[in-house]
Amino acid sequence: MSTVKYVLAEQDMPTSWYNIAADLPTPLAPPLHPGTGLPLGLADLAPIFPIALIMQEVSTNRTIDIPEEVQQIYRQWRPSPLYRARRLEAALDTPAKIYYKNEGVSPAGSHKPNTAVAQAYYNKQEGVKRLVTETGAGQWGSSLAFAGALFGLEVKVYMVKVSYHQKPYRRALMEVYGASVVASPSTETVCGRAILAAHPDSTGSLGIAISEAVEMAAQREDTKYALGSVLNHVMLHQTVIGQEAMAQMEMAGDYPDVIVACTGGGSNFAGIAFPFIGAKLRGERNVRVLAVEPAACPSLTKGKFAYDFGDTAHLAPITKMHTLGSSFMPSGIHAGGLRYHGMGPMVSHLLDLGKIEATAIQQLETFAAGLQFARTEGILPAPESNHAVAGAIREALRCKEEGKSETILFNLSGHGHFDMQAYMDYQAGVLKDFEYSDEEVAMALAGLPSVG
Amino acid sequence: MSTVKYVLAEQDMPTSWYNIAADLPTPLAPPLHPGTGLPLGLADLAPIFPIALIMQEVSTNRTIDIPEEVQQIYRQWRPSPLYRARRLEAALDTPAKIYYKNEGVSPAGSHKPNTAVAQAYYNKQEGVKRLVTETGAGQWGSSLAFAGALFGLEVKVYMVKVSYHQKPYRRALMEVYGASVVASPSTETVCGRAILAAHPDSTGSLGIAISEAVEMAAQREDTKYALGSVLNHVMLHQTVIGQEAMAQMEMAGDYPDVIVACTGGGSNFAGIAFPFIGAKLRGERNVRVLAVEPAACPSLTKGKFAYDFGDTAHLAPITKMHTLGSSFMPSGIHAGGLRYHGMGPMVSHLLDLGKIEATAIQQLETFAAGLQFARTEGILPAPESNHAVAGAIREALRCKEEGKSETILFNLSGHGHFDMQAYMDYQAGVLKDFEYSDEEVAMALAGLPSVG
Repeated sequence: MSTVKYVLAEQDMPTSWYNIAADLPTPLAPPLHPGTGLPLGLADLAPIFPIALIMQEVSTNRTIDIPEEVQQIYRQWRPSPLYRARRLEAALDTPAKIYYKNEGVSPAGSHKPNTAVAQAYYNKQEGVKRLVTETGAGQWGSSLAFAGALFGLEVKVYMVKVSYHQKPYRRALMEVYGASVVASPSTETVCGRAILAAHPDSTGSLGIAISEAVEMAAQREDTKYALGSVLNHVMLHQTVIGQEAMAQMEMAGDYPDVIVACTGGGSNFAGIAFPFIGAKLRGERNVRVLAVEPAACPSLTKGKFAYDFGDTAHLAPITKMHTLGSSFMPSGIHAGGLRYHGMGPMVSHLLDLGKIEATAIQQLETFAAGLQFARTEGILPAPESNHAVAGAIREALRCKEEGKSETILFNLSGHGHFDMQAYMDYQAGVLKDFEYSDEEVAMALAGLPSVG
Repeated sequence: MSTVKYVLAEQDMPTSWYNIAADLPTPLAPPLHPGTGLPLGLADLAPIFPIALIMQEVSTNRTIDIPEEVQQIYRQWRPSPLYRARRLEAALDTPAKIYYKNEGVSPAGSHKPNTAVAQAYYNKQEGVKRLVTETGAGQWGSSLAFAGALFGLEVKVYMVKVSYHQKPYRRALMEVYGASVVASPSTETVCGRAILAAHPDSTGSLGIAISEAVEMAAQREDTKYALGSVLNHVMLHQTVIGQEAMAQMEMAGDYPDVIVACTGGGSNFAGIAFPFIGAKLRGERNVRVLAVEPAACPSLTKGKFAYDFGDTAHLAPITKMHTLGSSFMPSGIHAGGLRYHGMGPMVSHLLDLGKIEATAIQQLETFAAGLQFARTEGILPAPESNHAVAGAIREALRCKEEGKSETILFNLSGHGHFDMQAYMDYQAGVLKDFEYSDEEVAMALAGLPSVG
């Protein structure tokens, strides 16, 4: 039995991004200034982002053209293939049909280059020389390093210290692309030094690394900040995935009954799901959409929908989102890309509106799913993507129980070739599950700002 | 400036393999029995290979059909893309046109699944339950593990001990696919125990690992041996690469003046080059073909074209090939896939006939080339593939010097995501070049068998 692949012709690659803001029944709550608590203006964001991206952040146009130069680079690996997972279906003995899009085929091995290339392009257009960013496990940092190399931009990455030491090979990939990588918290920034003074042994967090990168970007005229998830313009750039998937599902003569996507900051979720959710919001076609998050960082399922800080030092905007509180410290699970205290405002808003569902899955179940996927479909998923695989398997088994032949679609956001230690730990039986008690979550939520 | 990609429609994927034996002006010297020194018969090979593969090994048919089930699996990642390396050309400021085929898009990350899938298929057809093989760096072992998972075959891999310890992540990939991996020399085989008795600290070699795998395969009716390079049927299976490249070059309205390929046992070389060499042998179209080998294992450039053993314990057939002697111990360079004492008989024969050229390149030059490739084209090559990149860059710079706009084609045999330690060492300045003196080579050659 074989995998069936749906290949989109290069000329059928989307030429515009889809902006879900145009179809939201109620608009997003406005982002606020972290110092004043007042609505953010263009002038507040201009020191850290290029104008073109700020305009995309607030745009309500349904489509935004993808610049020709960005399309040219996308074509190195796009359109990405969509597969019917026939061998996985057979192994599960399910009447469900399972489709997956494979974003692991990009040069950096994940979906992140879709926005990295766009962000590098707009920064280059506006004369920026240097991009600063943060990274956890390194998927985002290596994607921005890749994009920076193509556009001749210097890239500096603040990498969460624990990952910097545990994942030297992701760091090496960034350095191969020419980026410089610093363990965060570092002594290079005011906020880094403050954290080190208070906690000399700090192993860092995404919130701290964001603070360092934002601080550094704000200091220099020729330097801007880049974020790999959460923000509206990042969601926008990822919608090439879902638009391609729509065309490929049409080639297959099928349409998803349920879309499953893993969620950290929300960019992978937005990428595969937003174009389909748009059709649902416009009343054209219904679909269930399921966000899968790790039980160890359950912002959608246990967090509060509230205004919160995006970073530890409170330099980044305050946004309304599902959050566990900016002081929340997620456990050291291997899906590093899903360990952020908040969820992108657009994804949070959709959950609040009841347009999507969310569930949290434990680490061990996700690795079991990833292993089964590798042995049936032949492709090894990243630990983040294992959450989507696990969610899709749950849905397929539900279909089996209910005797329903539903169509399931998920996005394989990246390959796991940089995550072998996690698989070794899993196979050796030393990986553990993590879950937070309601009390622990409540404690972290006590630090929410009193604004909005 | 952007990369230009040539995508072949799925229905234009080759449906047969190309067998260069049909076009050779003189046939290969026959393989000999390691014990008797007499020409090998079917009965000698039947305990270790399925009949279908033995027939392919000796076939002189120009084309051999690819079974539909193998084609179906190929389609998961095939046809692989062909690129014009415009950004690399610009960086080199060369009038040459550089094209490359990317085999790193396969699930195992290299060209090896092209033959692994075919070998697993034929073994499954003939009722084999278990495949045994050897692996050095792990590209081949992980590809056979992948193929074994898809066909429900048990896979056992003898991994060269030094790599087993240095490259735990390649081992982990094999184990994720369900294979069992043993460090070689092991205590499981007669030859492994003999070597350990004589050299308790032996870190192993491909020659030893082959001996262990062959010994194990010969013992059980339901178990066969699989080899990832060197043999004629392996070369055959890889020709899908070159056939696709021919069609893609035609799409580009171009034809290579020179083809560059890295060579270890010769399967990557055969894959990209044999279909073009066939056209040359038939007098249809001329092309220069350049084999690039590591200076640390220079079988084509410093070895002798002679009958030699394929393995250390002299259990595998004796074949006529360019060899450094079966006792040759290559240095610990990072291109583990290129560290075999001999070269495939077909590639050796072509060099002897003057139909191809060969050159040896030092390790540091290959890593410099790989880094330049990653920063211009965005794709990180495996250390083996860096030899092809370095060879292509040399040719492009020659074109610049001579003011010629030649067309260069090479195969990027695999991605380097499992080889980050090598890149870290290179960037830290601790990698070294290796070269053997003529005396050292002469010493290893003294052990050639007196047959043929």
